[in-house]
Amino acid sequence: MDNCIFCKIVTGEIPSNKVYEDDHVLAFLDIRPVNPGHTLVIPKDHFENIYTLPDETFARMSLAVKKVSVAIKQAVDADGINLGMNNEEAAGQVIFHAHIHIMPRVEGDGLQLWPQKDYKDGEAASIADRIKKEL
Amino acid sequence: MDNCIFCKIVTGEIPSNKVYEDDHVLAFLDIRPVNPGHTLVIPKDHFENIYTLPDETFARMSLAVKKVSVAIKQAVDADGINLGMNNEEAAGQVIFHAHIHIMPRVEGDGLQLWPQKDYKDGEAASIADRIKKEL
Repeated sequence: MDNCIFCKIVTGEIPSNKVYEDDHVLAFLDIRPVNPGHTLVIPKDHFENIYTLPDETFARMSLAVKKVSVAIKQAVDADGINLGMNNEEAAGQVIFHAHIHIMPRVEGDGLQLWPQKDYKDGEAASIADRIKKEL
Repeated sequence: MDNCIFCKIVTGEIPSNKVYEDDHVLAFLDIRPVNPGHTLVIPKDHFENIYTLPDETFARMSLAVKKVSVAIKQAVDADGINLGMNNEEAAGQVIFHAHIHIMPRVEGDGLQLWPQKDYKDGEAASIADRIKKEL
């Protein structure tokens, strides 16, 4: 894609701090980390989000995520690792080239997970049925 | 594992709203969703987190995540989907049986991603080198 910043990182037109690369996948540091070592794993080919990624590409990204997560934990002596992937603007996606965030955590870094809430009676079973019908 | 709540969900000893199942992977609704349709994808065998999951199991989980994400988007008419995985207590992991969150989003639901910050000069390159040395 001509105007995709991540495609330009793949070609080297835009520099990055690469940490892992294979034929299909690239991993590089997010320039604005939630904690140092925050890494993005992307497909080298342009796909917008998880809905359009081919299964094989997503599986390759996932294995790179696993490998790089273990390395980041050692490299920055992290107490934990969060993975995240934002698909579509409503989910906070800013660059529309699919990417998985690997975010090292340290005790007391103050980052808070989202609040969870309760289902009403019968609501969960009804929603599960709707999801199963779409599979 | 005798006292693992997710192992008991796999065996059926604890009920759940299942949405997807294959030989290796189970997906069911989180009982306390960030939004309705929030789903957890787990391996049927007990592994604590991403560090110890076998590659093949994690790849199978990832493909289930992709398939179920597309179904959830349709089922609850989501405007976006966030994926998340919390590894270790410092990253917010509460149940120590590896699981990937699929969280449907709707415009204006008010959930906020974590704040990002800047690297100092040279810090990013130094950290990238440390990660590469661990790979």
